[in-house]
Amino acid sequence: MTLVASSIIAGHPVTGSAGQVRGVNPATGESLEPTFTFVDETAVVQAAEAAWQAFDTYRSTSPEQRAAFLELIAHHIEQDKERIVDRAGLESGLPQGRLAGELGRTTGQLRLFARELRIGAHQEVRINNAQPERSPAPAPDLRQRQIPLGPVAVFGASNFPLAFSTAGGDTASALAAGCPVIVKAHNAHPGTAGLVGQAVTRAVAEAGLPVGVFSQLFGAGSAVGQHLVAHPRIKAVGFTGSRGAGVALMKTAAARPEPIPVYAEMSSINPVVIFPSALGSATQDLAAGFVASLTMGSGQFCTNPGLVFVPANDDGFVAAAGRALAAADGQTMLTAGICDSYRQGVHRLVKTEGVTAVSEGQEIVGRNAPAPTLFLSDTQVFRSTPDLQEEIFGSAALIVQYQDEEDLASALESLQGQLTATVHAGEQDCSGAGTILPVLERKVGRILFNGWPTGVEVNDSMVHGGPFPATSDSRTTSVGSLAIYRFQRPVSYQNIPADLLPEALQDANPWGLPRRVDGVLQD
Amino acid sequence: MTLVASSIIAGHPVTGSAGQVRGVNPATGESLEPTFTFVDETAVVQAAEAAWQAFDTYRSTSPEQRAAFLELIAHHIEQDKERIVDRAGLESGLPQGRLAGELGRTTGQLRLFARELRIGAHQEVRINNAQPERSPAPAPDLRQRQIPLGPVAVFGASNFPLAFSTAGGDTASALAAGCPVIVKAHNAHPGTAGLVGQAVTRAVAEAGLPVGVFSQLFGAGSAVGQHLVAHPRIKAVGFTGSRGAGVALMKTAAARPEPIPVYAEMSSINPVVIFPSALGSATQDLAAGFVASLTMGSGQFCTNPGLVFVPANDDGFVAAAGRALAAADGQTMLTAGICDSYRQGVHRLVKTEGVTAVSEGQEIVGRNAPAPTLFLSDTQVFRSTPDLQEEIFGSAALIVQYQDEEDLASALESLQGQLTATVHAGEQDCSGAGTILPVLERKVGRILFNGWPTGVEVNDSMVHGGPFPATSDSRTTSVGSLAIYRFQRPVSYQNIPADLLPEALQDANPWGLPRRVDGVLQD
Repeated sequence: MTLVASSIIAGHPVTGSAGQVRGVNPATGESLEPTFTFVDETAVVQAAEAAWQAFDTYRSTSPEQRAAFLELIAHHIEQDKERIVDRAGLESGLPQGRLAGELGRTTGQLRLFARELRIGAHQEVRINNAQPERSPAPAPDLRQRQIPLGPVAVFGASNFPLAFSTAGGDTASALAAGCPVIVKAHNAHPGTAGLVGQAVTRAVAEAGLPVGVFSQLFGAGSAVGQHLVAHPRIKAVGFTGSRGAGVALMKTAAARPEPIPVYAEMSSINPVVIFPSALGSATQDLAAGFVASLTMGSGQFCTNPGLVFVPANDDGFVAAAGRALAAADGQTMLTAGICDSYRQGVHRLVKTEGVTAVSEGQEIVGRNAPAPTLFLSDTQVFRSTPDLQEEIFGSAALIVQYQDEEDLASALESLQGQLTATVHAGEQDCSGAGTILPVLERKVGRILFNGWPTGVEVNDSMVHGGPFPATSDSRTTSVGSLAIYRFQRPVSYQNIPADLLPEALQDANPWGLPRRVDGVLQD
Repeated sequence: MTLVASSIIAGHPVTGSAGQVRGVNPATGESLEPTFTFVDETAVVQAAEAAWQAFDTYRSTSPEQRAAFLELIAHHIEQDKERIVDRAGLESGLPQGRLAGELGRTTGQLRLFARELRIGAHQEVRINNAQPERSPAPAPDLRQRQIPLGPVAVFGASNFPLAFSTAGGDTASALAAGCPVIVKAHNAHPGTAGLVGQAVTRAVAEAGLPVGVFSQLFGAGSAVGQHLVAHPRIKAVGFTGSRGAGVALMKTAAARPEPIPVYAEMSSINPVVIFPSALGSATQDLAAGFVASLTMGSGQFCTNPGLVFVPANDDGFVAAAGRALAAADGQTMLTAGICDSYRQGVHRLVKTEGVTAVSEGQEIVGRNAPAPTLFLSDTQVFRSTPDLQEEIFGSAALIVQYQDEEDLASALESLQGQLTATVHAGEQDCSGAGTILPVLERKVGRILFNGWPTGVEVNDSMVHGGPFPATSDSRTTSVGSLAIYRFQRPVSYQNIPADLLPEALQDANPWGLPRRVDGVLQD
């Protein structure tokens, strides 16, 4: 099947005249065929109305139908696997191995939500049987389930052209919940988005679902993206990207006549706390692990460790990390623009009083592959310089030396919301680690011990979220099976005739859902 | 114990100099002793800081400790039951029987959340055990639980001086989740708020909890309320009241440097759909049931049925409802201001083209007890006059005649979000009712058949919520056990040493929580 260089609205290719874009190889600057045209607000309206038309039919599908649909999407992505990985490599500068893994993660996510649908716990069925004899008044028959919110706008992310883009986690969880999806494709990887969009479109057709279940639009973020979030048929938004863009979407969503939820995963510097007991003979390994996590994928992971707290009385880690970093080569960043932003961020740190440069790696000239960089400061400077908490997207990190546990705790209290926090501690520091745990809990969505935050598992227990500004809504996650809860809401049914009860709520429980009946959990 | 006429900040009475208020008997205009002084922003800061100080200790309590605390609050409210009901009656004009019932509902809610804590499902524990042998990379030990958001601001509601006020549903669910609470007392019932606030304060002390777990402030809504929502230590808001006030709080919360969730239950006209088969010989009873629900408590329930769709070819219901309403006496409204707003709303309907007055009941002169009123219109006028969807708080309703099921469905599609929708249908209309069910699902939080929406059960299956403008957040409920989910968020723990794991996540499961372990639900 040819790569169709256009938006897809409800199964049909749609070209536009509001501009155009081509994929660009960030390592070479080479512009890639074909040219994708941009659509405008008219296409947003068409896609939104088509999604709305599809909504009631799609949400009435059974868990099994929806699970099979998600598996069909995974199948069609796998069918076109080589071409997708090749194209994503050309457009992103990311290595083929990483992208092959990311494709597996993407299909794995789709299958995780298929499994979730078959378990059915997310439907949160609760039944309180009638009590006609209750005094002073009889109790009605009351039943509760979750229904999908409505069409969801999903924004492709630059740093995960597969797992957080067209058929990524937001799309998979929204489709699983029963919501039609309209993807605003990321303009940094139009060909990848186009190929995956075609795979999804094929699955919609084969599953016999209404065509409006999926659309994908190419266009300017300020036009197509904003109009999408403002459109009355759109009922929720999934986004992964910069804080500026995420906050702009939050504002648009809040200013609508009917405000809607925005799930924006935005910025995090992922603090790492190193206790004295983690150092000593382990210092070299720890520093090597840190630099590997920092520079992996050119530091373009949401959970990249950009901030490390180390004891002030031990220079070993700083020195070892500096040496390891100096040996690290720059890697091509996703786009020339992202590379420029990285350089500006590094320049800002260079100019910051109280911050000194420790070391830098090797820039690969002419390939948008800037030098990884490491900076050093102390808790006093950190606390008094809020700008040091601004994420620099890429392989730059700041090491902050702390005097003692009290000084450390105080620095941690000054942190903004984060996706992750990592603790490195041996048994001797168990007490100190225990003391900072409640502080970290208040700040982050995931706490790890003696590891590195990059490498996000996709399972029931993962939280990829956290307090603002890490995300726009700390009550959820954008990775893992819990993510389906973002796109549904509870509805209660009182004394509904048995013939009219939705399957999920019928006494016979035809879908075999776990339920809470008269206060008792039943699997 | 004397009624202390002041705010309570972290266990201590605090008087202010930013104004004052007295309870007023709305039936007589009599001003009630004592005078409550208003605090200002300084007190907001004190209460917020005290709540923050208490937060980590309070959230580390066991489910049993927190359950016992909620039961202690219920106990102390019951200890002062007569005085609370008397005072609430004087301040609200509501009858003693209703208030005694509301007090029972309030203590029942506290005990429902105590039960919920002992069940423990809301902690949503998920465990994925490590897989050291997994290829290509080992899987870490990953565990997830829910933690409380932080201090919550709760706004007392005028129409439920007990069940939605100082120790009402918002407070009970926030405390259950592990969040300290600061109540902004409603100035229409300061004495009731004061008495209940003292009961809560006594329970905090007896339970040995940090004093900052509960504060209650008297002050101007524009000053104290807004400052509370804007304060950085406050992490969520619970509100029941007018759309104007709710939207103002949403704006303040969204404009904070760290936006926070607002759970505002605001406005709903609770459409009722009557199918032909529900009429005929049942018309008189149906009309009597409708008027009883409409006029109960002077129509001051959130779920008051303010809009009824009836078949155009059957005038029987309109006539019967008109007769029943004409025989209904006005009842004292909560405040003179609310009574004035009601009169203005009725006046607006009188002036609306295409709307005719059907009937009105008897005003009780001089007692803020205006006449219940009933209006009539048709679907065409209803669809083209969005103002007809504005709630008139009180016993006013609009009957809208529809031509056929298509006309009905089209009118229902034009509805804004609602708390409830009610269907009256006999077996002959099962198909028609089935057709509108998906439309209603998209519009409301609760659907009832052959009943009336007033009389909200408090149990696992209740949803007292719905799409905007019924509430600010359709993903939840402000009544029933699900409400605890509003005040928590997930946190994930990766490879945390067993010694440091929170009780909820320990292998031995000391709290006996239901868990999902490696994908399998375990009770």
